[in-house]
Amino acid sequence: MPKIVDHDERKRYIAEATWRVIREQGMKGASVRNIAKEAGVSLGALRHYFSTQQELLSFAMQLVKDRVNDRIDAWIPMDLPPKEKIAKILLELVPVDDDKMAEMEVWFAFTFQRKYGEERFDALHDGLLDGMRNLVGYLRDTGLLRPELDPEEEAERLYALVDGLALHVMLDPARIGRERIVRLMAGHLDSICVP
Amino acid sequence: MPKIVDHDERKRYIAEATWRVIREQGMKGASVRNIAKEAGVSLGALRHYFSTQQELLSFAMQLVKDRVNDRIDAWIPMDLPPKEKIAKILLELVPVDDDKMAEMEVWFAFTFQRKYGEERFDALHDGLLDGMRNLVGYLRDTGLLRPELDPEEEAERLYALVDGLALHVMLDPARIGRERIVRLMAGHLDSICVP
Repeated sequence: MPKIVDHDERKRYIAEATWRVIREQGMKGASVRNIAKEAGVSLGALRHYFSTQQELLSFAMQLVKDRVNDRIDAWIPMDLPPKEKIAKILLELVPVDDDKMAEMEVWFAFTFQRKYGEERFDALHDGLLDGMRNLVGYLRDTGLLRPELDPEEEAERLYALVDGLALHVMLDPARIGRERIVRLMAGHLDSICVP
Repeated sequence: MPKIVDHDERKRYIAEATWRVIREQGMKGASVRNIAKEAGVSLGALRHYFSTQQELLSFAMQLVKDRVNDRIDAWIPMDLPPKEKIAKILLELVPVDDDKMAEMEVWFAFTFQRKYGEERFDALHDGLLDGMRNLVGYLRDTGLLRPELDPEEEAERLYALVDGLALHVMLDPARIGRERIVRLMAGHLDSICVP
């Protein structure tokens, strides 16, 4: 009887090994060989699941995006005051724990890979600015956004603030703790909302 | 009579070739061989000025920092209203033209190199957060900062905003133009200053 292994489960397992390699060595270490070694599978086995390096990396990145989106989606139906809900969602995008830090490092590594690499990963930063537009629109629709503010400009500012914070936490995790990020986000939301 | 070449001038010339290589290929293309080729000098000649790749890259990065600092220093003595002066300084840190874009790409490439590389470039992001503290302190000292705001928190928020914007402009230059950046920066300064 052949060994039964769940195909999707196996792919996720290899994707997680990919994240570990990227976290430790950056994108330049993310060779198929290194990833197979980290996952403890043979090159042949890895190729059974992903026929090219790009296919593997794209899958690993998509998994990051799915995880972030799933966490955000979980907050949407929650019965919370709008400002608090938005603060919770924004915190899903800044690396405030080890898991999120891994995602963020993979995200940045891919983004730079896209910028300089021969292989292009499209639609990476997609969604985030639109997400910010939705959040600011939600504040406006609930009457919380200061009426003198331009929603499009506030979405852009929030987008820059979140990615700038994420970048700084990633580059220097010892400097900024979770508490400080929570306070900064709350302070920013207060500043764009009516008292 | 030996050919007389200005040593510092020559080093700057090679550093600028280094920036071009990094802009086109990212840090992974910044080999001594590629840089010598881009500069149109022999490997031997390049080694005359820089004995290791790290020495060359550190010099190229230092030159970026010097240029940014020189431009900022030029604004300090100017007779401008404080808020306007600060807006001008902040704009030196976001890539609003081709020259600044090159600096920014080199800056990010080095920063990520530091994060994942074997060679460490220290003191790269140094200075920027302190610079933000100075700017916010200047607003406070001139009575412009809203008194209810915490200067340290505002410095951190400004730092994240500037680097986030810089990152977004660098990754997607076609999306955000100079005008939009100027407006965003002015809007942010307005939001932290008394009316």
